[in-house]
Amino acid sequence: MNSFGTLFKVEIFGESHGVGVGVVLDGCPAGIVLQKEDFEEDLARRRSGALGTTPRSEKDAPTLVSGVYRGKTTGAPLCIYFANENIHSADYGDFQAVPRPGHADFVAQIKYGGFADMRGSGHFSGRLTLGLVAAGVVAKKVLQAELGKVKFCTRITEAGGQQDVAAAVAAATADGDSVGAVVETCVSTLPAGLGQPFFDSCESTIAHILFSIPGIRGVEFGDGFAAARMRGQQHNDPFVDAAGHTAKNGAGGINGGITNGNDLVLRVAFKPTSSIFKPQETFDFVQNKPTTLQIRGRHDACIALRGAVVVEDAVAIALADLFLLARATSPFLTQPEPLSQTGAENSNSLFRSST
Amino acid sequence: MNSFGTLFKVEIFGESHGVGVGVVLDGCPAGIVLQKEDFEEDLARRRSGALGTTPRSEKDAPTLVSGVYRGKTTGAPLCIYFANENIHSADYGDFQAVPRPGHADFVAQIKYGGFADMRGSGHFSGRLTLGLVAAGVVAKKVLQAELGKVKFCTRITEAGGQQDVAAAVAAATADGDSVGAVVETCVSTLPAGLGQPFFDSCESTIAHILFSIPGIRGVEFGDGFAAARMRGQQHNDPFVDAAGHTAKNGAGGINGGITNGNDLVLRVAFKPTSSIFKPQETFDFVQNKPTTLQIRGRHDACIALRGAVVVEDAVAIALADLFLLARATSPFLTQPEPLSQTGAENSNSLFRSST
Amino acid sequence: MNSFGTLFKVEIFGESHGVGVGVVLDGCPAGIVLQKEDFEEDLARRRSGALGTTPRSEKDAPTLVSGVYRGKTTGAPLCIYFANENIHSADYGDFQAVPRPGHADFVAQIKYGGFADMRGSGHFSGRLTLGLVAAGVVAKKVLQAELGKVKFCTRITEAGGQQDVAAAVAAATADGDSVGAVVETCVSTLPAGLGQPFFDSCESTIAHILFSIPGIRGVEFGDGFAAARMRGQQHNDPFVDAAGHTAKNGAGGINGGITNGNDLVLRVAFKPTSSIFKPQETFDFVQNKPTTLQIRGRHDACIALRGAVVVEDAVAIALADLFLLARATSPFLTQPEPLSQTGAENSNSLFRSST
Amino acid sequence: MNSFGTLFKVEIFGESHGVGVGVVLDGCPAGIVLQKEDFEEDLARRRSGALGTTPRSEKDAPTLVSGVYRGKTTGAPLCIYFANENIHSADYGDFQAVPRPGHADFVAQIKYGGFADMRGSGHFSGRLTLGLVAAGVVAKKVLQAELGKVKFCTRITEAGGQQDVAAAVAAATADGDSVGAVVETCVSTLPAGLGQPFFDSCESTIAHILFSIPGIRGVEFGDGFAAARMRGQQHNDPFVDAAGHTAKNGAGGINGGITNGNDLVLRVAFKPTSSIFKPQETFDFVQNKPTTLQIRGRHDACIALRGAVVVEDAVAIALADLFLLARATSPFLTQPEPLSQTGAENSNSLFRSST
Repeated sequence: MNSFGTLFKVEIFGESHGVGVGVVLDGCPAGIVLQKEDFEEDLARRRSGALGTTPRSEKDAPTLVSGVYRGKTTGAPLCIYFANENIHSADYGDFQAVPRPGHADFVAQIKYGGFADMRGSGHFSGRLTLGLVAAGVVAKKVLQAELGKVKFCTRITEAGGQQDVAAAVAAATADGDSVGAVVETCVSTLPAGLGQPFFDSCESTIAHILFSIPGIRGVEFGDGFAAARMRGQQHNDPFVDAAGHTAKNGAGGINGGITNGNDLVLRVAFKPTSSIFKPQETFDFVQNKPTTLQIRGRHDACIALRGAVVVEDAVAIALADLFLLARATSPFLTQPEPLSQTGAENSNSLFRSST
Repeated sequence: MNSFGTLFKVEIFGESHGVGVGVVLDGCPAGIVLQKEDFEEDLARRRSGALGTTPRSEKDAPTLVSGVYRGKTTGAPLCIYFANENIHSADYGDFQAVPRPGHADFVAQIKYGGFADMRGSGHFSGRLTLGLVAAGVVAKKVLQAELGKVKFCTRITEAGGQQDVAAAVAAATADGDSVGAVVETCVSTLPAGLGQPFFDSCESTIAHILFSIPGIRGVEFGDGFAAARMRGQQHNDPFVDAAGHTAKNGAGGINGGITNGNDLVLRVAFKPTSSIFKPQETFDFVQNKPTTLQIRGRHDACIALRGAVVVEDAVAIALADLFLLARATSPFLTQPEPLSQTGAENSNSLFRSST
Repeated sequence: MNSFGTLFKVEIFGESHGVGVGVVLDGCPAGIVLQKEDFEEDLARRRSGALGTTPRSEKDAPTLVSGVYRGKTTGAPLCIYFANENIHSADYGDFQAVPRPGHADFVAQIKYGGFADMRGSGHFSGRLTLGLVAAGVVAKKVLQAELGKVKFCTRITEAGGQQDVAAAVAAATADGDSVGAVVETCVSTLPAGLGQPFFDSCESTIAHILFSIPGIRGVEFGDGFAAARMRGQQHNDPFVDAAGHTAKNGAGGINGGITNGNDLVLRVAFKPTSSIFKPQETFDFVQNKPTTLQIRGRHDACIALRGAVVVEDAVAIALADLFLLARATSPFLTQPEPLSQTGAENSNSLFRSST
Repeated sequence: MNSFGTLFKVEIFGESHGVGVGVVLDGCPAGIVLQKEDFEEDLARRRSGALGTTPRSEKDAPTLVSGVYRGKTTGAPLCIYFANENIHSADYGDFQAVPRPGHADFVAQIKYGGFADMRGSGHFSGRLTLGLVAAGVVAKKVLQAELGKVKFCTRITEAGGQQDVAAAVAAATADGDSVGAVVETCVSTLPAGLGQPFFDSCESTIAHILFSIPGIRGVEFGDGFAAARMRGQQHNDPFVDAAGHTAKNGAGGINGGITNGNDLVLRVAFKPTSSIFKPQETFDFVQNKPTTLQIRGRHDACIALRGAVVVEDAVAIALADLFLLARATSPFLTQPEPLSQTGAENSNSLFRSST
């Protein structure tokens, strides 16, 4: 359904051309310092404004509807809301009869029987990621309040197969086309012990939320798909010290589904934006014959430009959930049992928790 | 935690060198024909026996403990159990002091405070995937009973960067090393409408369960990471007929998180097996100094050989869950509203459901 | 956490004296006719205005923020929002130092470390039930759209041990005191087959949501606590016809956790309102000594007067969830297998589904 | 579905006359001392053997299939299994054609389309509560390991309306009839702060699992239904000391859905056993006419005799889950913020946590 998380729960709502969009965030611990200004940095990264991003300009001013009192979280659910203001619905008229290639027009028709509000792509719109970003900002504050310095570093490593991202986007824009890209997020100073061996592995939890971001075609950790081309001797990460640091990081900071205290490293593949200004062949479901479609409106040429911060915030949400889960069920993360009680073989005092 | 699914729920239990392993499967509809023989094909694929797979030979005979009566599912939870028989725990002595690179030895120590049963890698062992395979067999039967012919096709497309997989594995085995590989699964004749726009997208649900399979480093759909190198005109899939078929399938059968009725196509990257017979540098946490580790025991040289069917069965589990969810909340999949009631703009009679 | 439901999911947010309160409702099928006016009847029942209800007067005008388009649900999450307008926070000053007996003041302090917004009881306030009522209105529309005529009948059967409820409330009001009451809800024309044998039994699901309504001390089904004083011959309900009707209804329409097609009957015990105008002995946690507390402000003398419709709407939410669950996993509710395929012993054509 | 819990998750499986029954328990912290002998006391209480309990005698010897190593929990899922041995299926022949009044025979037929294994009532049998008892034993050990002395006290307070329970049961047995009863559980030395304001209130969570025990018709906390007959002055519990103790306990230890540190007190109403030896009028669904049913077999005359310990263990499971949830999201339970940081009004140092 439209929610994510076991303890740090995120539910988003809204449509692109409706009244507004928002998020309800449940499970946020009380006492986290939080004010409207805290959202500005990530919201600005999401707005971007760079060449190749949509001319639709929204203020994106968050309203803290609930869960914050006197500048701190209360422990009750947070509702963070963004009104819609700059709407041009006229651009979206014909996509039920002639669905856009690569878009949700066709599947929405099938799934919701023609009742979906598809103006501006409705609930499928990238505008819904505003709620993800807002929740991610809170997640980062939770992680920092509870764990000290956890650092996120996110960048676009390539677009259209080129490392000069700006050039690739400019070329696609000039052609009335769009271009795909790879986004990499690295999280450092994260404790060991987050994640479960099966089903709720660290990778499972993170990939789950990442694949709900519109336009993502692939997710990989550490060496990722390159690991499939390696030998074991090449891929394995030797431990080098008593803190569990490794000489290299092919695993991306995760062993057996659980963080090992090294940097968490992941990459996602964004597809090229589906909405392009070149004429496209598609099918007219009313006339029941092939047709040519010319898309108008305001669109990003490279969604990764604005999507990079969404990736980072989605990862933060997943990590906040994994952290709260680990705090509940793994007391050993912070309170290892003394050596004498368990005998040498069972002792965990050999290891230092990064917590 | 150690369970997956909202309506078709899978919970696995057991340890590699304990009494046995198994799965409890809740939410399976009543009346599905099911007997022990139905598991044999996939269990045999998982045993493999090919060059490069472990010499540990287990009969893997499933016991249907509950949920089946007179050869059909009853609607109550299924418990399917596999006893452990061929166990050599002596091979696994020292990995708490000197954790194996790439293994869960270190994180288990941190997370479970030294109390985990790590004989044969315990609950982290690939042996736990027996439960996944058993549940996947049931999932495929559910899909076929409810949806008619749904076809799975799974293959190893490359190992160690080579298309001649057997040669790559043989070479790694000869070197006492291991090798990674890519597994591709294609599911055809799947209805449109499975998955949700956010959070429980088709990709999210499938990637979630795939990343709980030990040794997977990446998951991609359709064009996957290649899409990041494409232009939109190249990646978009034009619709070509009134059934929603597309001229190509760069989206891997999914738009907006929802299946579109074309083939579902995904690939996973398996890392090379962590257990190799070459000496490896690592750290001795008791002596608190670097050391050299020589692993013995019985290990696969290429986990993808046995893991391919696990991928397929994990996908089947996710699809069974998505199907039941869609049946609950999307009645339009089978009963589209007539054109006259909604007016031309909202009509979905334009589309033909693949259901 | 602050959400309920597996498929028909309700999440409420807000505080009594904050910006507003609301609900996000996920899983509502598309195509349900819904407009603002549909909420008026139940909101009016909740406002009540009868003698013994609070003088706080709120317009309670719902804003349909998302999930509705052209008068019908879209299949995307509904957000329904109520602004707070008539607020007297000054009445709530001292309850952290001197917590009110029977209120959440003390536990909120413990649980949220002093960060909760307790103005007007904050997130603990009965005002949060606005979201429950709004969701219940939608739930009833879903049940009626999917199942035909499902009828709810709710009444206060007694207050303060008297059947003349108005008199009991008037007497308590005159004394500056409050009074408890019993509310009974009966749901008729409900199909057989809703609920699960264990854990998500019909009673479990309904009691779960009922016990989240502030002020409820007990929940019983059918004969309820009276059954504990009966013999089996007296309590058992004999079947009387091929539709599964029973001669009496001591089970309240539920056998083995599953509805049997007879009327669902339940009762809840509301405690007397905690806020009374009589002086009360309690403890001053700042002065660390006993003290006398005089509560001011605007309070109901009998919460059941306004709570009755909340009970009904909570039951409707639970039933909508149970219905969607049953539709997903119990296809036999609507499509019984023909006799010839299963043999006489297994046939269910013996029974007629009420669906 | 057939599972319970968010962090301390219980899934039961099995049928009365199948291979066996059991439970998978996920989320149990590592390092809890646990051996087979720990289960004996509660299993013996459940067997009972008193006059009025079934002559079916099962050894009920638990097998610890997984999750325990060297006498301690490992952090991986526990599977605890009980083989079925003493089975008389012949006693259960005709209940699909002529369903027993008060039993699940009819609803199982509707819900599972005739495919349920109803021998000995199958998955609906009280035998499934073996898994609940086993999980409850572990839950109590978790609570004691994590919280120190938490004490459970459970008793039958009345049967058939009489306080002399043995006499009431003997009289019913002599008549070939059965009798209902009330069971009360009191949990002392429980910390304040468990439970959530809405939906996952302490009462909601406990009532949810209690109502999955076969034969329960009502659940009440503290004064329960008697509170509906009270005035507020009579029902409110005045605080009397700085630890949050109250002069009386009408709330049953819960305010606003959250434990307040006083004794948790609840009562459940067990109906009289449905299986009685007196002839009963019912309906023959094959002959399509009324008939008289004579039940044979082995049955309890008063299920509360064996059900009392099931109630206690179910409460323990719910409390273990609530405790882990509180540990994850409410760090203030153990680490209150110092007075000086929040100012007098927000300070929680006024209160002493019972943790």
